[in-house]
Amino acid sequence: MKALIPYKRQNAKSRLSPALSLREREQFVELMLRDVVESLREAGVTDIDILTTPSNGVPGDLGTNILFSEHDLNEAINQYLETVNEPVLILMADLPLVAPRHVKEIVAIDKDLVIVPGKGGGTNVLCIRNPQRFYVRYYDSSFLNHCRIAEETGQSVHIYDSFLLSTDIDEPHDLIEVMLHGHGLSKAYVDSKFGMERNGKSRAGLGLLQ
Amino acid sequence: MKALIPYKRQNAKSRLSPALSLREREQFVELMLRDVVESLREAGVTDIDILTTPSNGVPGDLGTNILFSEHDLNEAINQYLETVNEPVLILMADLPLVAPRHVKEIVAIDKDLVIVPGKGGGTNVLCIRNPQRFYVRYYDSSFLNHCRIAEETGQSVHIYDSFLLSTDIDEPHDLIEVMLHGHGLSKAYVDSKFGMERNGKSRAGLGLLQ
Repeated sequence: MKALIPYKRQNAKSRLSPALSLREREQFVELMLRDVVESLREAGVTDIDILTTPSNGVPGDLGTNILFSEHDLNEAINQYLETVNEPVLILMADLPLVAPRHVKEIVAIDKDLVIVPGKGGGTNVLCIRNPQRFYVRYYDSSFLNHCRIAEETGQSVHIYDSFLLSTDIDEPHDLIEVMLHGHGLSKAYVDSKFGMERNGKSRAGLGLLQ
Repeated sequence: MKALIPYKRQNAKSRLSPALSLREREQFVELMLRDVVESLREAGVTDIDILTTPSNGVPGDLGTNILFSEHDLNEAINQYLETVNEPVLILMADLPLVAPRHVKEIVAIDKDLVIVPGKGGGTNVLCIRNPQRFYVRYYDSSFLNHCRIAEETGQSVHIYDSFLLSTDIDEPHDLIEVMLHGHGLSKAYVDSKFGMERNGKSRAGLGLLQ
């Protein structure tokens, strides 16, 4: 089992800008990447490829492979899938709530494809048994795209249902989930910047620490 | 195993008002309630109490018990817990994505308490083995409250991780999840009103059907 993590740091996560400055966002996406890599390793997935461009500066001490592509996300991943001959787990880098337990459960599922849906029809994790028989189509309700591609190519599918893996960190209110359910470097970072506003409402708000 | 569903229909779900009129919202919350009751039944949980007030008009054909209380949510549930002598599953009525599989898995977990977190620190489902040893405190980061209460009363806890159960239907964008992952009456209702806007972005938008 290989893992592939697409990674973008430059001006990443602009929707977090009400809460974090450009420099903070670039720090934070690197910490999220480190947490994702750590969870993969703890789950026994050690052959990890990070897909990025040279200007995104993947830290050298991660101990992963680094692959460069200037293509867009779909084209870059599809070129990658054509070259590999073993199962591939594609995880987004903005999933700091992923735990080793999730990875172990997903790779143990005996289906051709495991899809972990994100909010709004996104695909947060894909586990692809036969990379040469599959292609990705992110954006534009990718969850439905990937279900359809599996059907068209006659592959069996498991939909893996996880709140923690559905939570990609895109907007300020997602940072609350890192506080509540996170671990590792990304949780430490969010805890160092923000407090939780418990104001009697059903959902907690994000407060800036003094 | 008993189930308890707190239910409010009158002027419910005001945050859905950009998408649904008052009358539509009142229809929709009733359909969600019916789907939740159906999933419980299919999972073998048939002793179902709906906790409400007389003015909320629980439909008479549901075949559930109906309990009236004018107290606030926490006080009403805590009074209820004092009177029952068997395990109780508390489900919110705005969880139309709940499937029989979820209910079966949750009631089979061998812990004193199962907590299903919602977004923003909410509690969407609670499974309480010993109702007389527990009390609820909804609102105000209830997920943390319930973890703390379990710890203070020396009870074991399982956090059940589900995207579908984390999705309470509060805001227009939550209706997309009903389209994508729903079933039953609530999905049919949403599909009859809205279409999905697939616009090349990572998350699909909600479009009004002509």
